[in-house]
Amino acid sequence: MIKVVIIGSGNVAQHLIAAFENSKRDGNAVDLIQVFARKREKLVRLLDSNRITDNYAEIVEADLYIIAVSDHAIMNVVANLNFKNRLVVHTSGSFPINALNDSNRRGVFYPLQTFSKNKAVNFKLIPICLESENATDFQLLSTAAKTISESVFAINSKQRKALHVAAVFVNNFTNYMYQMGHQICQEHHVPFEILKPLIAETANKIMVLSPQESQTGPAIRNDSETLQAHQDFLSDENQLYIYKIITLAIQKNGKKL
Amino acid sequence: MIKVVIIGSGNVAQHLIAAFENSKRDGNAVDLIQVFARKREKLVRLLDSNRITDNYAEIVEADLYIIAVSDHAIMNVVANLNFKNRLVVHTSGSFPINALNDSNRRGVFYPLQTFSKNKAVNFKLIPICLESENATDFQLLSTAAKTISESVFAINSKQRKALHVAAVFVNNFTNYMYQMGHQICQEHHVPFEILKPLIAETANKIMVLSPQESQTGPAIRNDSETLQAHQDFLSDENQLYIYKIITLAIQKNGKKL
Repeated sequence: MIKVVIIGSGNVAQHLIAAFENSKRDGNAVDLIQVFARKREKLVRLLDSNRITDNYAEIVEADLYIIAVSDHAIMNVVANLNFKNRLVVHTSGSFPINALNDSNRRGVFYPLQTFSKNKAVNFKLIPICLESENATDFQLLSTAAKTISESVFAINSKQRKALHVAAVFVNNFTNYMYQMGHQICQEHHVPFEILKPLIAETANKIMVLSPQESQTGPAIRNDSETLQAHQDFLSDENQLYIYKIITLAIQKNGKKL
Repeated sequence: MIKVVIIGSGNVAQHLIAAFENSKRDGNAVDLIQVFARKREKLVRLLDSNRITDNYAEIVEADLYIIAVSDHAIMNVVANLNFKNRLVVHTSGSFPINALNDSNRRGVFYPLQTFSKNKAVNFKLIPICLESENATDFQLLSTAAKTISESVFAINSKQRKALHVAAVFVNNFTNYMYQMGHQICQEHHVPFEILKPLIAETANKIMVLSPQESQTGPAIRNDSETLQAHQDFLSDENQLYIYKIITLAIQKNGKKL
């Protein structure tokens, strides 16, 4: 059994803890022996309290330490680890591998998903992007990752940075498009519910068609009459501005704006 | 039985034909008695040829005529209908009801979804937005719509315009965000597949949380370090420009950009 210690108690840490605990019940190869959390009370529902510590000095020996804290807190955690030559990984999409302290063997264990406190996710479907300094450590990370996910990838720091930026576009910015749609509905007393099947189908299409093939609407077909009607309709300046910019970007199709 | 004639042979017409034909098999209240199509051959797989005509003079008497053609072709179809005082509706999101010729009773039958030729959709889940000039016609439209969809709404022309613009944001512009993500992945030799579970979850979240509650990422949490790192990473000018604009819009949260 691979002995794992998780450091952190936020969204990512909690989802990882739950996933490893579930996989153990399935008879898998990871034993989550301890979690370090400054706020122990955040974890009491997830695992028994004798496996939780809030004292760095009490962290036990393990095969793998997963630092699941926000980016700005990683260096502080690393500075507090008083052991050497063990495998220590972080879960960040943007933090490079060599930013970790080299007194331990370094690695990355990045689950690429958006985690919310009050929304369960099926961890089996979440891609985990792994990086390590040597093949033995990669093997260990891969074995551990495969106990909780069916989708495990070797991704170096530069690729991970690309994924992280791309994720901002397909997640954060997409959600902002939902926000604009929601605003427009509210302004005109139309239930946002009506748009939900369209939102679902827009995401579904991408599973079978490329985004290029899926692009529809007045911008891509250069329907200047509809584009003008939409622009005349939008009274909110920000909505109008975003409408014009994205329309232009679609029409330029990669050429300079 | 409500006798229906559909005019058109494009994506929307084809999906409507298939939906009505399926609902008839379920013993429902609509009888699709004829389809007018300039190109008969586009429909031969969907219904038997004796119900297809390419001659306006051959259009039979019916309770409801659904014009399912692109916006710019609607007026031409209307000009060719040589009957009066019948219920004639279009399927457009942006065309106002009173743009139809008033020699017939006017209405709108707008299924709000993105239709692709090679991707089936479950019509039962597609919202149909209805508008008419009087209550009797609305009742007939509603009965017909409910044979193919579980989600039928009364939406006036101004509300429909709002929905149509909002749909551009949540569908066309969202898909463009997928395109940018796809581009970034290609440039850095990362499989776009890795982002698909994130895309699915981003859309799923909206079914249970509002877009405001779902907003995450470096922009909303004012993580200037990550924002700067992403901007340093993006070498494509359009990507960088869109990144900066949407980030600013998220941070301004409705205040003027």
